Amino acid sequence: MIDLRSDNVSGIAPELLAAIATANEGTALGYGGDTRTSLLRERLREEFERDLEVFPVVSGTAANALALAAISRPWGAIYCHQSAHIHNTECAATEFFTGGAKLLPLGGAGHKIALPELESALADAGIGLPQRAQPCAVSLTQATDFGTVYRPAEVEALSQTAHRRGLRVHMDGARLANALVASGCTPAEMTWRAGVDVLSLGATKNGAMNADAIVAFDPGIAAELRFRCRRGGHVPSKMRFLSAQLIAYLEDGLWLRLAERANRAAATIAAGLAGVAGIELAAPVEVNEVFLRGAESTFSRAEQLGLLFYRRPRGTIRLVTSFQTGDAEARACVDILKRAAA
Amino acid sequence: MIDLRSDNVSGIAPELLAAIATANEGTALGYGGDTRTSLLRERLREEFERDLEVFPVVSGTAANALALAAISRPWGAIYCHQSAHIHNTECAATEFFTGGAKLLPLGGAGHKIALPELESALADAGIGLPQRAQPCAVSLTQATDFGTVYRPAEVEALSQTAHRRGLRVHMDGARLANALVASGCTPAEMTWRAGVDVLSLGATKNGAMNADAIVAFDPGIAAELRFRCRRGGHVPSKMRFLSAQLIAYLEDGLWLRLAERANRAAATIAAGLAGVAGIELAAPVEVNEVFLRGAESTFSRAEQLGLLFYRRPRGTIRLVTSFQTGDAEARACVDILKRAAA
Amino acid sequence: MIDLRSDNVSGIAPELLAAIATANEGTALGYGGDTRTSLLRERLREEFERDLEVFPVVSGTAANALALAAISRPWGAIYCHQSAHIHNTECAATEFFTGGAKLLPLGGAGHKIALPELESALADAGIGLPQRAQPCAVSLTQATDFGTVYRPAEVEALSQTAHRRGLRVHMDGARLANALVASGCTPAEMTWRAGVDVLSLGATKNGAMNADAIVAFDPGIAAELRFRCRRGGHVPSKMRFLSAQLIAYLEDGLWLRLAERANRAAATIAAGLAGVAGIELAAPVEVNEVFLRGAESTFSRAEQLGLLFYRRPRGTIRLVTSFQTGDAEARACVDILKRAAA
Amino acid sequence: MIDLRSDNVSGIAPELLAAIATANEGTALGYGGDTRTSLLRERLREEFERDLEVFPVVSGTAANALALAAISRPWGAIYCHQSAHIHNTECAATEFFTGGAKLLPLGGAGHKIALPELESALADAGIGLPQRAQPCAVSLTQATDFGTVYRPAEVEALSQTAHRRGLRVHMDGARLANALVASGCTPAEMTWRAGVDVLSLGATKNGAMNADAIVAFDPGIAAELRFRCRRGGHVPSKMRFLSAQLIAYLEDGLWLRLAERANRAAATIAAGLAGVAGIELAAPVEVNEVFLRGAESTFSRAEQLGLLFYRRPRGTIRLVTSFQTGDAEARACVDILKRAAA
Repeated sequence: MIDLRSDNVSGIAPELLAAIATANEGTALGYGGDTRTSLLRERLREEFERDLEVFPVVSGTAANALALAAISRPWGAIYCHQSAHIHNTECAATEFFTGGAKLLPLGGAGHKIALPELESALADAGIGLPQRAQPCAVSLTQATDFGTVYRPAEVEALSQTAHRRGLRVHMDGARLANALVASGCTPAEMTWRAGVDVLSLGATKNGAMNADAIVAFDPGIAAELRFRCRRGGHVPSKMRFLSAQLIAYLEDGLWLRLAERANRAAATIAAGLAGVAGIELAAPVEVNEVFLRGAESTFSRAEQLGLLFYRRPRGTIRLVTSFQTGDAEARACVDILKRAAA
Repeated sequence: MIDLRSDNVSGIAPELLAAIATANEGTALGYGGDTRTSLLRERLREEFERDLEVFPVVSGTAANALALAAISRPWGAIYCHQSAHIHNTECAATEFFTGGAKLLPLGGAGHKIALPELESALADAGIGLPQRAQPCAVSLTQATDFGTVYRPAEVEALSQTAHRRGLRVHMDGARLANALVASGCTPAEMTWRAGVDVLSLGATKNGAMNADAIVAFDPGIAAELRFRCRRGGHVPSKMRFLSAQLIAYLEDGLWLRLAERANRAAATIAAGLAGVAGIELAAPVEVNEVFLRGAESTFSRAEQLGLLFYRRPRGTIRLVTSFQTGDAEARACVDILKRAAA
Repeated sequence: MIDLRSDNVSGIAPELLAAIATANEGTALGYGGDTRTSLLRERLREEFERDLEVFPVVSGTAANALALAAISRPWGAIYCHQSAHIHNTECAATEFFTGGAKLLPLGGAGHKIALPELESALADAGIGLPQRAQPCAVSLTQATDFGTVYRPAEVEALSQTAHRRGLRVHMDGARLANALVASGCTPAEMTWRAGVDVLSLGATKNGAMNADAIVAFDPGIAAELRFRCRRGGHVPSKMRFLSAQLIAYLEDGLWLRLAERANRAAATIAAGLAGVAGIELAAPVEVNEVFLRGAESTFSRAEQLGLLFYRRPRGTIRLVTSFQTGDAEARACVDILKRAAA
Repeated sequence: MIDLRSDNVSGIAPELLAAIATANEGTALGYGGDTRTSLLRERLREEFERDLEVFPVVSGTAANALALAAISRPWGAIYCHQSAHIHNTECAATEFFTGGAKLLPLGGAGHKIALPELESALADAGIGLPQRAQPCAVSLTQATDFGTVYRPAEVEALSQTAHRRGLRVHMDGARLANALVASGCTPAEMTWRAGVDVLSLGATKNGAMNADAIVAFDPGIAAELRFRCRRGGHVPSKMRFLSAQLIAYLEDGLWLRLAERANRAAATIAAGLAGVAGIELAAPVEVNEVFLRGAESTFSRAEQLGLLFYRRPRGTIRLVTSFQTGDAEARACVDILKRAAA
């Protein structure tokens, strides 16, 4: 069995499991009052090269919805790409946490918001008119749900347009590490230096045991989150075990090395399928997701041969690699698909 | 340092940490689609001797607010004791998740809802009148925030009154194991047999790493929770690690043994302080919480001598023991308090 | 000045003002407990040829948002046309009253939802999947915001598709009377016989003083609305004055006569502009709205000549006639536009 | 029949009905863009002797819930007297509009919040602690639901305590005119000069046809209300008819004369019953509400003799007079009660 259904089918990276075990000594104040959570804050400040606040949470949905609620009014409009996870795959969590804001999906090539689409939407939004939901935020998914990556210049252009109109910018970084590896830029360059006000920093898909974090680059956003997280049930009392994982995640670039492994496996699969008749890449592979087009019979055979993946609309399948997917497994995946297509 | 600030300052019980490590092999479907979560469901059905559904979550606040939202309308009234955690210490989470229901606090000796108070409140509630919030639920905290325990007959009497009027019954079992040990009854006797419709099953305060669960004894409640948990960001993707802990927690009565240790430490402290001049028990000790009255100077001295605890209003302090609090630590606590009072 | 900015710039039809004055005698129980509200219920049952419940409210936004909240879950998806008033011009009221449901806009010619678009959306909606907002309702705007009219067969086809999947059907009938006149069918044929479960029955735009109504064809929906209206602040205490107006509105077909006048004025304008160089109808005129395309200079001149109207995107203007717009005014409007275009 | 069930059983004061008729000429921009609404703003500024914004709405519940939502966070605590209308008789509207804030009822003699109760509640509130709902507002009901009246000095003392802790002050003035008449002070003295930040200005119970208003003494509150009113469905499009009524209401002190009539009728009833065996005043009569204690048989006989009123708990009945209750009717009420008690 080769399980490429999602990167969240993976387990805990050994370094993070070790960090949990190490943190399991003595007592520690609950709800983030412990020393490890303070240390995590310090580590993130170094990593992102600026002051910030951090709120460890247990799911990407929680991170996204809480972060967006902190920057949107209940009558707000939040712009995202039409393929965004927050719009399609989070059971209206953002609408819930904001108290009824609207997600307004935009188009754009490569599953990234096109700047002219955002500009045009804002021009027509009726800012200040009480009958219209009021533009409050732009949310960028990084990497996107189709494995593409915004470059810092793209983030910056969108952010500038947003900020000019008074909107704040959120980045859903469920796969931020993969995007950093793909683009070769620093966390700072990819986020606040490019205008991001609040970040969902994913770790779960990349080796953590249900540990993600909201990183607020603005004290006003952080002040809101203290209460929003608590009333959302999103302040696990034994916070030290989330913080310990996240510290280990950042230690010596572990997060990037884990992401690199996942990205490399996807690249191996993509390269291995080049020129294979009956299977084509539906999109370029930038991070750890591979989208393939082919005959349904091909894909059914691949399943019978032991490859696990999810189907997407219009004859497409999605393979997602993780830090656990080794080279051997990537090559085995290629073999299965070649045999299935033969 | 003897840290009795709360039972959530404790770490992970070794058996549960081992269960996490054991579960960290291979891949597993996310969001509860894994085999361990299915197994947990089976184990709970045995433990509670009936059909049920389970939703692992990461905090007691999440469990309570989600469970109550599943049994209350947005214009609902939820009755609880005036000392209830959901009313005082969860940042209005229940009001948030229900979409604006009212918590109506009732009185009652021993921090337990008095039946006549509930009856009188329901008689005056204006059931069916559109100008009144409509009674939907009763929530019982077990053990209470002051360490007292509802007996099954008490739960049953309150449940019958509630059910007669069409309300559902929730039990906030953040310290259910401690209450079971104290009362010597089975999980079934304490919950659904006594009329409980939905249970917050705590494990975090008793040895788990941020793993509690909502147990729904009614399929209609469970059907709601599938969506409510998801849009609340409360379906951690790597659910297997919560389920693995909860399975280990139930295994061979571990949860009761852990709770017994915590209860015993509290009893040791209470017994050791009997007859000590200047310190008196503010309440009988039934589970793992000890409330003491005394001079502020006594308590300050105790802090200087290395005892950590929280102050409560009106010259009272609270000590909370956990599965980690051994006999030696309990006796050392007594010694400190005696010296402080001398 | 010829004011065609909207039909809500009009005043109160004399018959309705008289009804207010007549109702102003003696005392009457508040909040709908009065005899006139009971009588309204009876009159509506005759008019719609079936049992129903009615909830008079003071705005179309209130009617729509409350009606949709009664048929959607907080995690619901509500389908509407992308031009729908509820989506674009009600400040996210539906999102607020539902507690966070999503409005999902669909396309379709003539500003009406295309059946294949609805079918395809439902097929892809992931019904039952907890990560997806769950389809709960379809909302049809009748007449649409661009003055087009669904025929009963169109309503029925959409309703059948919706009902087959468990969705309920709402009709935003802010201009229902105009649509009935245009299509020549009965209220029953246009609504519940074609599958509508709950109706926003507009009267304000057609002669009432802030009096619209929610008409529930299903007792379950009505049961919800009793509480939802009250906690929304939407049960005016002196309800008799809304009910009196609505009774007068229905009396001897007054509502249809008022709408006919408005529709006729729009038709007069459309006919008068046929063949005028420099001005073209942007859409066929079915009810009381006329959309025109032309040069900005033409429209500016028309304003200087005393015609009041609103601009729409892409060089279009909108003229809305009302029961107050007489033939003379319609012809004068044509004259102004001709002179402006000359 | 003498109908003293509530002041909202009354009709429209002739001056206000005339104002509606007069306003029914020509066209007027909708949603408050009309000249009468501008004029109302000016008139209120004179009446209250300062800058302010006004939002006409159709119910007291709407005014209260919207006003409180504009000054509370979703995790806010709002203090009110335990007898407050917002707490007991508005179907949790405030909880709905705020997105889940808590109403915390306080005690106090005469159904008015006792200053020490507020001080003590705030001292224990845990301001800044994320596990606690955060104190945001105090709401004063003027006159109270039991017909008592806060004096300006009382309002000021409560407001100062509230402001010192960062809370805002709301006054539910559903019967403000009656309270002004009873206390002989000016609108300014009773509201903003005494620290009120936002006011629900009632007119419906005192002669208007479903026309009340929110008066915001702070531009920040007003900025919120523009959107909150709209998404609440509380901006009636033909606003001119509410504004016209409210202008007439204020004209030459009409509101005070109407209230004086109601208060006088209540005083007549109270005076007439002095010394009548078997009936006693349950509370002093300050405005237009009379609470009586007596035998159930007495009250049943009074009903049979044609007096309409509501029962309250513990053998009490409530009579409410209005601007329509003349002297003759008041004396007839006394006669009936005397005969009933004989």
